[in-house]
Amino acid sequence: MAIDEAILDDLALGATVLGTGGGGDPYVGRLMAREAIRRKGAVPLVGVEQLPAEGLVLPVAMMGAPTVLVEKLPSGEELARVVRALERHLGRPAVALMSAEAGGVNSTIPVAAAAELGLPLLDADGMGRAFPEIPMCSMHLAGVAATPMALADEKGNLEVLETIDNFWTERLSRSATVAMGGSSIIALYPMEVRQVRGAVIEGTIGRAVGIGRVLREARSGGAGVLEALLKVTGGRRLFTGKVVDVLRRTDGGFVRGTASLDGIGPDEGSVLRLEFQNENLVAVRDGLPLASVPDLLTVLDAETHTPITTEGLAYGQRVELLGIPAEAIWRTPAGLALVGPRAFGYEFDYIPLERGEAGERGLQAGD
Amino acid sequence: MAIDEAILDDLALGATVLGTGGGGDPYVGRLMAREAIRRKGAVPLVGVEQLPAEGLVLPVAMMGAPTVLVEKLPSGEELARVVRALERHLGRPAVALMSAEAGGVNSTIPVAAAAELGLPLLDADGMGRAFPEIPMCSMHLAGVAATPMALADEKGNLEVLETIDNFWTERLSRSATVAMGGSSIIALYPMEVRQVRGAVIEGTIGRAVGIGRVLREARSGGAGVLEALLKVTGGRRLFTGKVVDVLRRTDGGFVRGTASLDGIGPDEGSVLRLEFQNENLVAVRDGLPLASVPDLLTVLDAETHTPITTEGLAYGQRVELLGIPAEAIWRTPAGLALVGPRAFGYEFDYIPLERGEAGERGLQAGD
Repeated sequence: MAIDEAILDDLALGATVLGTGGGGDPYVGRLMAREAIRRKGAVPLVGVEQLPAEGLVLPVAMMGAPTVLVEKLPSGEELARVVRALERHLGRPAVALMSAEAGGVNSTIPVAAAAELGLPLLDADGMGRAFPEIPMCSMHLAGVAATPMALADEKGNLEVLETIDNFWTERLSRSATVAMGGSSIIALYPMEVRQVRGAVIEGTIGRAVGIGRVLREARSGGAGVLEALLKVTGGRRLFTGKVVDVLRRTDGGFVRGTASLDGIGPDEGSVLRLEFQNENLVAVRDGLPLASVPDLLTVLDAETHTPITTEGLAYGQRVELLGIPAEAIWRTPAGLALVGPRAFGYEFDYIPLERGEAGERGLQAGD
Repeated sequence: MAIDEAILDDLALGATVLGTGGGGDPYVGRLMAREAIRRKGAVPLVGVEQLPAEGLVLPVAMMGAPTVLVEKLPSGEELARVVRALERHLGRPAVALMSAEAGGVNSTIPVAAAAELGLPLLDADGMGRAFPEIPMCSMHLAGVAATPMALADEKGNLEVLETIDNFWTERLSRSATVAMGGSSIIALYPMEVRQVRGAVIEGTIGRAVGIGRVLREARSGGAGVLEALLKVTGGRRLFTGKVVDVLRRTDGGFVRGTASLDGIGPDEGSVLRLEFQNENLVAVRDGLPLASVPDLLTVLDAETHTPITTEGLAYGQRVELLGIPAEAIWRTPAGLALVGPRAFGYEFDYIPLERGEAGERGLQAGD
């Protein structure tokens, strides 16, 4: 498969479902990728087995608060610059690029970079969704170092980091991103192809394209959109409500906040609190945890079934909250230690989405 | 001349006079340099004419708030790491190292690095004194780029920056230094030897050694220490007083503050306010500017004639305030625009130290 303009649109749409409100507004990344594809042609989407074992694979992404990206557009040249900087630092060319996460902008930014540089895109990402911090990915779990890492801004500034661990990478690159104005373009977690298997989540890009296609086709069909989406994602409807309050602040390179939903239809009489840090983290229904990271919490416009990002949440929206089971690696003890609710400061254990109903979930419930 | 242990002590002492309260406590840098000289031998101090025209010269320094350095000792390995990182980035070895500024720790840190790496030290610096920010040096005035620049911390983290101008270098490296815990070791302003002449202040290290020697000899002689120091520096006594108040805060990678002195002896009845940002910036006597950057304002203990750094100022100290004329480049319009009082936010023009007496200086006085 090659990613052309039509597939790009499905990818951006599907990745916003997997992005759980984060990963940035897909619009900017899609524009950049479309423009690059028009100039340079479609981007081959390849599997691990199609690449040489010694080849260098580079994940590319946007870092920072999505609220900032909307007003601070990348120039496009940063994409080539971060890749070239790491190639130069490592003394070898990349054979393929990769998505670090399947969020909106971060699903399409690597497509723009791959088109620009004439490289294929590996059908994989490091999360199977989006998470807000550098170590929150499968490469980290597999012991891959995030550095050498390159960061660039739209003005032309560039940094290359080498850190003692991936938590220092997060700390230093977050501070650099804030100093650069709140967002940056990054290349990190350089890997040889032979390291890739087991260290990445394979098939995520194809999966996102598939979700986007189903959503698009169902929407043009006009009926059963939610059902089609639940079927293709393996997810479930968690709540239907109206946004009655949104608190959001951009802080330390993240956008953090809470949305409050009053139940409507089947959830009339209930209230839901949705907390986010770039991505949706936790849904609390009538005071009890309903679902949480690492499972995916995606908000859809109840009319159009378009995914709503955390910076797009606004008073008065009627929405559906979807839950989608996390990739298997996130449900392991190591995965939950890294991205479970306690990793984000919540004082309850993870309960898999599919286990039990909301009424059975309580603050005391263990896993 | 080669810098051995004895000359190192004179250098550290003399550079603290030129450091105008900043550049860090000399103790840490002198310890590191002494240890490296014991292991690797004395460091040749060379002139520009002794180096090959195509050779690479690298200034090396400590960056950050001196208050932090005292409690966060460099490991020593950072020195080699920043030099090696820039050599690797530039694809060529350094032929000599250099001091970025003649402050306490920053006069001796390059000696430690040169001993460690078996390189000569160029007898030059970029300030002829110490200043708090990256662009405040002769290399910047000469149009040399501060990047590529390398930063390292004592934990093992490393960054290489490439920026669009030297003000962005200051911004990004300051933020990295803060994220690294408040201090870092840096190598920057890489130059070819043929660029060096006119872009650096030649002879500063020899000058600092000379000042240190005079101070040491006069102290052991017991009398006329201040007079000897004024003669060798071309300076003048500005104020004699007792420290009655010190306000100091570590903020954004700098230590900033104000010391208040009550006059004693010849200055009985007057009060002096000394303001600093790492270095002493401005002396205000009885409400009127007495002297300011770029001229050097150095505080000496009135008994021992030891220079007191801005982080060493304390209630009850009896001190002499010395003024020493700045290097000629700082008195040019471009020099004053970069490091004159207005560059630090003061609303008066620079008045050369040697022009007129304190009584004639006023807020309205133009230059």
